[in-house]
Amino acid sequence: MANPNNPALRSWIDIPPHSDFPIQNLPFGVFTTEERGTRVGVAIGEYVLDLYAVSQFGFFRGLDLPTEPKVFRRRSLNSFIRLGRPVWRAVRQRVSELLRHDNPELRDHEEAMRTCLIRQRDVQMLRPVKPQNYTDFYSSIEHATNVGIMFRDPANALLPNWKWIPIGYHGRISSIVVSGTDIRRPNGQRKAPDAAVPTFGPSQQLDFELEVAFVVGQGTKLGDTVPIGQAEDHIFGLALFNDWSARDLQSWEYVPLGPFLGKNFGSSISPWVVTLDALEPFRVAGPAQDPAPLPYLHQTGQHNLDINLEVCLAPAGGPETTICRSNFKYMYWSMAQQLTHHASNGCNLEVGDLYASGTISGQSPDSFGSMLELTWRGTKPLTLPDGSQRKFIQDGDAVIMRGYCERNGLRIGFGEVRGTVLPASEL
Amino acid sequence: MANPNNPALRSWIDIPPHSDFPIQNLPFGVFTTEERGTRVGVAIGEYVLDLYAVSQFGFFRGLDLPTEPKVFRRRSLNSFIRLGRPVWRAVRQRVSELLRHDNPELRDHEEAMRTCLIRQRDVQMLRPVKPQNYTDFYSSIEHATNVGIMFRDPANALLPNWKWIPIGYHGRISSIVVSGTDIRRPNGQRKAPDAAVPTFGPSQQLDFELEVAFVVGQGTKLGDTVPIGQAEDHIFGLALFNDWSARDLQSWEYVPLGPFLGKNFGSSISPWVVTLDALEPFRVAGPAQDPAPLPYLHQTGQHNLDINLEVCLAPAGGPETTICRSNFKYMYWSMAQQLTHHASNGCNLEVGDLYASGTISGQSPDSFGSMLELTWRGTKPLTLPDGSQRKFIQDGDAVIMRGYCERNGLRIGFGEVRGTVLPASEL
Repeated sequence: MANPNNPALRSWIDIPPHSDFPIQNLPFGVFTTEERGTRVGVAIGEYVLDLYAVSQFGFFRGLDLPTEPKVFRRRSLNSFIRLGRPVWRAVRQRVSELLRHDNPELRDHEEAMRTCLIRQRDVQMLRPVKPQNYTDFYSSIEHATNVGIMFRDPANALLPNWKWIPIGYHGRISSIVVSGTDIRRPNGQRKAPDAAVPTFGPSQQLDFELEVAFVVGQGTKLGDTVPIGQAEDHIFGLALFNDWSARDLQSWEYVPLGPFLGKNFGSSISPWVVTLDALEPFRVAGPAQDPAPLPYLHQTGQHNLDINLEVCLAPAGGPETTICRSNFKYMYWSMAQQLTHHASNGCNLEVGDLYASGTISGQSPDSFGSMLELTWRGTKPLTLPDGSQRKFIQDGDAVIMRGYCERNGLRIGFGEVRGTVLPASEL
Repeated sequence: MANPNNPALRSWIDIPPHSDFPIQNLPFGVFTTEERGTRVGVAIGEYVLDLYAVSQFGFFRGLDLPTEPKVFRRRSLNSFIRLGRPVWRAVRQRVSELLRHDNPELRDHEEAMRTCLIRQRDVQMLRPVKPQNYTDFYSSIEHATNVGIMFRDPANALLPNWKWIPIGYHGRISSIVVSGTDIRRPNGQRKAPDAAVPTFGPSQQLDFELEVAFVVGQGTKLGDTVPIGQAEDHIFGLALFNDWSARDLQSWEYVPLGPFLGKNFGSSISPWVVTLDALEPFRVAGPAQDPAPLPYLHQTGQHNLDINLEVCLAPAGGPETTICRSNFKYMYWSMAQQLTHHASNGCNLEVGDLYASGTISGQSPDSFGSMLELTWRGTKPLTLPDGSQRKFIQDGDAVIMRGYCERNGLRIGFGEVRGTVLPASEL
């Protein structure tokens, strides 16, 4: 069988240059149209391949799939993912075959082709997974250092536990929304350091956080742990993630139990989940870890991923400005270390769990993954092409995050996660 | 229609004195037997009333229920709860009627009676709800003060935000288990203040937290808020909750993002959800709040509940010792204030959400709701009848929490939440 990651593969579908979705990618998502209802699909160029339709035409015959694959008509990928890695792999492999330039099966079957392929612009994408649990990590050393300098002590910016533990916290599931969903500015309590009492009103420090989230593809039982060498076996794929944050709410509420209403009014996820398999060619080593992690987190080899990331800001009716260029490879703690740590106390993982990276900042100021860092807590406002300035995000602003891997002419992209900020509700 | 809370009601079922489950209670739960599969039931005395069987015999005819009430055969109460308050009320009302001493419908229908009633000892109880989201609050002023004295500054034990915000954080859903499930002692990182580096191994400070959790019965849309006067309309019922905690893991990991692996290895919930309706007679005013909360949290009237709580500890093979007597009425922040705060930024609530109170401590040392407080961080060990001492929980110990309301001879109880601690997994 051909390796679906082979850079030489071509499709009979016309793929625009620099597309995020060449035949080597084949990410999974969930879409809906009025006629079809809800379907699982695969992105290819500017099209979606409707996997339910593909199965109805018999193209999955011979794969170890249920005869009536209801998993392809669900509102989330969870049921499909639950079928297990051999099935995901077989489906991706088979889709790759069907789309190859030299395979006539689907290409020359006019009715099937017309039914199975839909333009992405004609479908509505849904949240790809129903998160069973959602954990947000804090694994960029640059981000943690920046925050430590700004809010605590520049001389001791990193807390003593940071280089020992992939610090994380549980986030809110209900408010995770798919790209394109508007985000309403939250009201909430905040208190200026010199104010006597807090006030309640619209957040004045609305921010984004540039993150990448991975989706758990294989769960564990309560009490079980995951050896670090097996951690990646539990990962299905990755998506872009914007962990919207209201800094003023957050700084007033977060001691001692962590972020709560400053975060849980909304998080945005991109609609396409790029499989870990598709990202194999883009493995790189992570930063050196000093001190060496405790043995249960000790890891050698290439466990980071070279994913270029960018954040664009577009004022209402205005053009996009790129305000941040970062990379997922900067992560100090790898996904495997995050997952193994998460399960190290016996906490059970579930298929569909979302584990987000935390803000991904690099070393240069233009690689910082939040307005908090880009404007250094508002002290260095950004100036947009229209002359307006931003300390934080304004009503009407759209925040767009994009990500892609690129090597030797092969580009594997994530599409985008986009959200536009609506004014706060009236009190 | 008779008020199902009327203390004068009697059932034709023999209810033992001091039962938690008189005809005035009628809590909902989910049980399973080999023959029946999974069913929704109501506790009455030492019996469970099988609501699916009741519906099959036509006793719910006339209620606004689906003809084939699959909601009574699910693995959680969520689908039933989703039918809405008028339906919960109608079902509880009808069950009350059916069980009244002077109603022959079920009492004199021998086949139905034999089918619909099962002894509790013959069924296995399941986790009553599938939590969609789980938030743990920190709403006992005595607990927060005790923790502040021990870990921070006795002179400033309460943090500045505590009297303004019902502080809370998101907890782990996957590891919430029903009473009776054993809890494995977690391994994890901990570092003594004077140690140079952390170590990984079994928690040496395993603790319980005495809590009460409420189940959300009516959700909201993302962006919506809940006025304080309507908050209780969103509550279905209450259960006992043990938020197991590994203090050594927690104290090393929790800065700055809050509790994580110190908590998420397991939380235990009691199997019966007592409806807020059944608890109406036990309303009391909460503690005076000074300073007055901000307007969105301002509340008058009786919004606390007088629920006696106790914690017992039983070493392996040994008798139970009551080590704590507390009361849910001590809560500084009411459930309504917790819920309204939670939704105040537009965070959407979902049916089946669990919101736990945080440790419920009273003013006297024997009312403290955790070993941390009862033994004052291990400095005042408890002595059990067998002469053994406890600073924290040992392997083989069972922790049992019970709760009940009592007034004028009417007792509405919660049953118990129980968990036995297993030794940590080998490293």
